[in-house]
Amino acid sequence: MSRPYTRVALIGLGLIASSMVHGMRRAGMTAEIVGTARSAETRTAAREIGLCDRITDTAAEAVQGADLVVLAVPVGAMGDIASEIGPRLAPGATVTDVGSVKRAVIEAIAPHIPQGVHFVPAHPLAGTEHSGPRSGFAELFDNRWCLIVPVEGSDPAAVERLSAYWRALGAHTEPMDPDHHDLVLAVTSHAPHLIAYTMVGVADDLRRVTDSEVIKYSAAGFRDFTRIAASDPTMWRDVFLNNKDATLEILGRFTEELFALQRAIRTGDGDHLYAYFTRTRAIRRGIIEAGQDTDAPDFGRGYARK
Amino acid sequence: MSRPYTRVALIGLGLIASSMVHGMRRAGMTAEIVGTARSAETRTAAREIGLCDRITDTAAEAVQGADLVVLAVPVGAMGDIASEIGPRLAPGATVTDVGSVKRAVIEAIAPHIPQGVHFVPAHPLAGTEHSGPRSGFAELFDNRWCLIVPVEGSDPAAVERLSAYWRALGAHTEPMDPDHHDLVLAVTSHAPHLIAYTMVGVADDLRRVTDSEVIKYSAAGFRDFTRIAASDPTMWRDVFLNNKDATLEILGRFTEELFALQRAIRTGDGDHLYAYFTRTRAIRRGIIEAGQDTDAPDFGRGYARK
Repeated sequence: MSRPYTRVALIGLGLIASSMVHGMRRAGMTAEIVGTARSAETRTAAREIGLCDRITDTAAEAVQGADLVVLAVPVGAMGDIASEIGPRLAPGATVTDVGSVKRAVIEAIAPHIPQGVHFVPAHPLAGTEHSGPRSGFAELFDNRWCLIVPVEGSDPAAVERLSAYWRALGAHTEPMDPDHHDLVLAVTSHAPHLIAYTMVGVADDLRRVTDSEVIKYSAAGFRDFTRIAASDPTMWRDVFLNNKDATLEILGRFTEELFALQRAIRTGDGDHLYAYFTRTRAIRRGIIEAGQDTDAPDFGRGYARK
Repeated sequence: MSRPYTRVALIGLGLIASSMVHGMRRAGMTAEIVGTARSAETRTAAREIGLCDRITDTAAEAVQGADLVVLAVPVGAMGDIASEIGPRLAPGATVTDVGSVKRAVIEAIAPHIPQGVHFVPAHPLAGTEHSGPRSGFAELFDNRWCLIVPVEGSDPAAVERLSAYWRALGAHTEPMDPDHHDLVLAVTSHAPHLIAYTMVGVADDLRRVTDSEVIKYSAAGFRDFTRIAASDPTMWRDVFLNNKDATLEILGRFTEELFALQRAIRTGDGDHLYAYFTRTRAIRRGIIEAGQDTDAPDFGRGYARK
């Protein structure tokens, strides 16, 4: 068994960090939880709901004496935070992050990690469209994957200790190489998010279909896009700017494929459309069998939730 | 109060028709329910579960003596069914449909409707990715919209009678012009479905990201696309072929917008991305306020449904 952490510092108190707090409490972890956030408003909200054992005004204070430091800020802010906390990190501590991009984050953080401190990047694949310290809940990571992305020279014991911590929060863990991580996430998350944002923007732009019509009739398919497209703007801006190459590559493939389907519609090629739609249906079955979604006929919304 | 129907014939026994049966029973409607489907397998399944009061082998038999005839088949099959049942329709009966496209469906059905029979097209905006006679459930239409799309000369009393029927199934009703319907649906449903199908197809195609990775890590955003892209292939092929112009127009706008966002990513224009993502978030809020989705932090899936 890996040793549990005794003091955990959470830098950034959004959906992920606040869910980690609830998850740690649910798991009965006894570590002291110290939190901090750049905005005074966020710190005040966190204090009001008693989110952490202690809230500090700066990241430098928060990490003092912590044996686990979690960077849970937008990807673009990781480098500045790392440079601020670097000199204050306790020897033997583990620094991790929860960023949706790994190569760029590693390049931003690694130079600031002193000798004797372990750096083990990670990425829990979980989220909702909500943000802020009040949005967390203990079950967010249950049965979800947390990818552990060790860097060159990561201490295997520190990697295993962090993995055990994530499993205690309910997640499954799996190691992955940073570049492969960024490609897999471009496919499963980053490109879908940009596409959803785009479609929602188009709907909003159309003058012949009113906003109220778009909203009223959203249950016809559009609704699922709006959920994705309601995610935190800062977080997603940073994701796209920091996983540029992989995202643009996948979007290029997407456009190519979309043009082929548009041509099939224009030329009335029903066989092409039917074959394509039949193939995509099989992927959905795989996801339900893999336990990453429910098969409930109403998608789990509404009537069955009493 | 409109008179209730005394015999309802359902042509096609998929998700919508089977949900209508359950909804009618829940509402305590006393009408005899007669069903039919082209495939013998579907008719057998419907008989096994006792879906209707009577299952006939042909549409022509099913409509005899019915005062409401519902065409619940893929949009491309409507014309043939209408031509088959036209001569058998009872005087004073109402013929309606549940197709996702209205202009093309009206052109396919209207010529076969005899004098003295009312034709009132409709479209319930509800669905899941499941299909077939076993997939229906009474709550499918609850709090969803059913658009009523009268044609020239539709009898106001017949329109109101059908609207009251849909409201008894739990839906809200609203009249809409056929061409506007097709544009609104292109935005809220048809284009989003094609985009989701495309993205799922791209993921499946990528050789460097395995299928099992796509499935395992789907919770990161992709999952919502796969649900949409698992819908019935025949139904959707017909929708795209029959709402060609509006769908292609919206897809053209979508591509234009997507290119602008791709350029912002490529050039590192974070302000453009942030502003765009902030705007789309507001639309989501509107949908939750309009009661067309739940705000539950897990999207209503999983842990909260005990």
